[in-house]
Amino acid sequence: MNKLEEICKQLQAASTVSIIMHRRPDGDAVGSAVALGLALQQQGKEVRLICTDAITPKYQELTIPFGGLSKQVEGLVVCVDLATAEMAGAYRDAAQNADIVIDHHGSNSGYGKRQLVVPTAAACGEIIYEVVCMLGSLTPAMAAAIYIAVSTDTGCFRYSNTTQNTHRVAAAVMAAGIPTAEINRRLFIEMSPQAFAIRRAALDSMVSRLDGKVRLMMVTLSMMQQSGAMEDDVENISSIPMEFAGTIVAATLRESEDGKYKVSLRSNGSVDVSAICATFGGGGHRSAAGCLMEGDQKSAQDKLLQQMTAAVKGLEDGRIVTD
Amino acid sequence: MNKLEEICKQLQAASTVSIIMHRRPDGDAVGSAVALGLALQQQGKEVRLICTDAITPKYQELTIPFGGLSKQVEGLVVCVDLATAEMAGAYRDAAQNADIVIDHHGSNSGYGKRQLVVPTAAACGEIIYEVVCMLGSLTPAMAAAIYIAVSTDTGCFRYSNTTQNTHRVAAAVMAAGIPTAEINRRLFIEMSPQAFAIRRAALDSMVSRLDGKVRLMMVTLSMMQQSGAMEDDVENISSIPMEFAGTIVAATLRESEDGKYKVSLRSNGSVDVSAICATFGGGGHRSAAGCLMEGDQKSAQDKLLQQMTAAVKGLEDGRIVTD
Repeated sequence: MNKLEEICKQLQAASTVSIIMHRRPDGDAVGSAVALGLALQQQGKEVRLICTDAITPKYQELTIPFGGLSKQVEGLVVCVDLATAEMAGAYRDAAQNADIVIDHHGSNSGYGKRQLVVPTAAACGEIIYEVVCMLGSLTPAMAAAIYIAVSTDTGCFRYSNTTQNTHRVAAAVMAAGIPTAEINRRLFIEMSPQAFAIRRAALDSMVSRLDGKVRLMMVTLSMMQQSGAMEDDVENISSIPMEFAGTIVAATLRESEDGKYKVSLRSNGSVDVSAICATFGGGGHRSAAGCLMEGDQKSAQDKLLQQMTAAVKGLEDGRIVTD
Repeated sequence: MNKLEEICKQLQAASTVSIIMHRRPDGDAVGSAVALGLALQQQGKEVRLICTDAITPKYQELTIPFGGLSKQVEGLVVCVDLATAEMAGAYRDAAQNADIVIDHHGSNSGYGKRQLVVPTAAACGEIIYEVVCMLGSLTPAMAAAIYIAVSTDTGCFRYSNTTQNTHRVAAAVMAAGIPTAEINRRLFIEMSPQAFAIRRAALDSMVSRLDGKVRLMMVTLSMMQQSGAMEDDVENISSIPMEFAGTIVAATLRESEDGKYKVSLRSNGSVDVSAICATFGGGGHRSAAGCLMEGDQKSAQDKLLQQMTAAVKGLEDGRIVTD
């Protein structure tokens, strides 16, 4: 019996299942939890959805079949899309001792009693698809939740994590007759006028060095106020500087209420931004990392621009030697 | 023997094949022609790519194996992604008498000697995939061309034409090991600084009526000049007004050198924009149509805003009655 079968057998044996999501739940977390929850309801189980944070309005409708979120963890405990127990926030202890962990993060810490971790899956929803199909029959509601999980984690099949299997799962869930065009329009095409306004203000703040190979963009509290933007409106805003063709490394500084700047660094992969963030006490991956900076805006900008410029120049110097 | 087999047999029997694309060739036209051309080269055929317009820089590399475009139509003539012979421009007569027509437009006029028209295909590339697989073995270069065809015609799997089969074909061509993330980045994520600048100017020109249900945006010659934008930089710019959540109907007016305005109307489907365009001598589909307008900018804007506002009000009046 393989891991998938073992997990399904354990789920089948339960009468109540609590599904824990990570804090600030995204489309993959909510979609995975909802699809699994619906499949368990289909099998006559009581299902509780658990999350330390509220579900963002655009995904709230998905949780209606469960009466929204529950506060009480009961029965068999399953964590989905949760790399570490800490990411469960207030439900950290319950997650730590979870019966089943279904995840796609290569960095999964190995918490819980039984793991099904598939790092090659672009989204946890890809693994949930297999679980759901083994548990029972795929309904349009389950299919839509899986589609949302998979499409949001891959930027609608654009990002480098997208694999053949991602498309295979998309084809399979579309067979259930879900309104993918409407979902795509809502999740990937439409923006609020406030989101347009904050993007415009952020673009106006952009400074560049070395002919645009280095870019830095601000999202200040006054920009947020003047544009009327809410948290949902600035989702993924730090990806904008890298959308300029020719950008090698870019920073987005988001001003927070306590006077600090939350810095998101991105690169095209040739500069290791986690190394730059490490010098400011942060970290992350080679092409996406973050750190917190204090002090005045100008000096934070200058420090970042200096480091990013040096990194790109180092790259160019390296090239002269090796070419 | 089905149509696909008949066509492959005819292609196998030829020694030289000319593949005709439509004017202003897009990703589906070039990708389809190139994938088919490579499959025919693999079978030892001489292949000519034919198009009345130059290939846009972003797709030029694909045509290198053919030495770019040819001027001379020779051997067996195949049209791909070509709804009417007229769309072949200078090669209209050759297209009219084409031996084989492979297309996905429901509006295909039925020209040529033998047709393989599949209107449910989101892209001609989906049909070409079947042809290529039947002709020989799929190489990474063919797979990349098919991926470009399919992804560009579906807005990277976001538009309503995307089907299960679109994802199935994407999964199949990814199996050939193509750099989809790099292709997606170049085609769907990156923009030139000039493209950002012209979008910004266009956004600044936007006027709205009825709380943003009606929107109108300008792309003038002076905006083009000031932003340094070229033709490639304004591709799909007329989709921007509909990206504002809540927009029901939107117009984009593009000023041309001869003092006219090329108008693109879009709607969310509830207003028939082809009817509005028809009153100005244009036409199109329910949710995307176009027309040409003369005279001064202000009066063109006023006429369009008046008609669009009336259409939305008509919708709302209708609702009051039926609710």
